[in-house]
Amino acid sequence: MEVKWDARGLVPAIVQDVQTGAVLMLAYMNAEALGLTLKTSEAHFWSRSRQELWHKGATSGNVQRVREVYVDCDADTILLKVDPAGPACHTGEQSCFYRSLTSDE
Amino acid sequence: MEVKWDARGLVPAIVQDVQTGAVLMLAYMNAEALGLTLKTSEAHFWSRSRQELWHKGATSGNVQRVREVYVDCDADTILLKVDPAGPACHTGEQSCFYRSLTSDE
Repeated sequence: MEVKWDARGLVPAIVQDVQTGAVLMLAYMNAEALGLTLKTSEAHFWSRSRQELWHKGATSGNVQRVREVYVDCDADTILLKVDPAGPACHTGEQSCFYRSLTSDE
Repeated sequence: MEVKWDARGLVPAIVQDVQTGAVLMLAYMNAEALGLTLKTSEAHFWSRSRQELWHKGATSGNVQRVREVYVDCDADTILLKVDPAGPACHTGEQSCFYRSLTSDE
C-alpha cells in the first residue's frame, strides 16, 4: 500500500497501547522509520527536533513492541498498536496526553 | 494553556471513541476550530483540502460530541475523546484506520 508522505517526506503516526487502548503519543515517520518499524516490530520515528532517525526506547529502554499497524483512508496517517515497555512520555507519564484542556475552563 | 500551532497555524487532532477506545481519525485544527470545539462540545476542524472550517457531521449528521480534550506534553497535538453519532470515515467505516499495513506482508 502506498503511503502519502507530506512535503517533508513524513507522516504522523499515532501510538496506541494495544492492551489498554490508551493513546500514548503522536510522532512522525519517514519511509525509513516505517520500514524499520515493520521489519523489527519496534517503533521507529523521525525526530523533527533532532532531525534524525529515532528508535523509541533505544536509550530509555522504553521500547514499543509493535503488534498492529494501520493506515487511514487517505493513507496519510499511521496508527501503531503497541505493547510499551515503559512510559511513552519523556516526563515519565504513561501517555503524553496527560493534560486536560477542558478542565482549564 | 498555550497550544503550539505549526507554521500553517494548525495542530493535528486525534479523535478517539470515548466508549470503545477506538482511534477514529486524525484531522487538523486551527485556533478557531479548537475554540468552537471547546465552546460547542462538537468537533470542529480545519479542512486542509477545502481550506475551510469543518464542523464534522454538519452535512452527514455524524457529529462527534466531545467529552474530553487533552493536549500532549509539548502542546502540539490534541486528543479528543468523543461520542460519535455515526461513522467517522467518509467511506462508511467506523474508523478511518480500517486497513492493516502488516497484513500486506
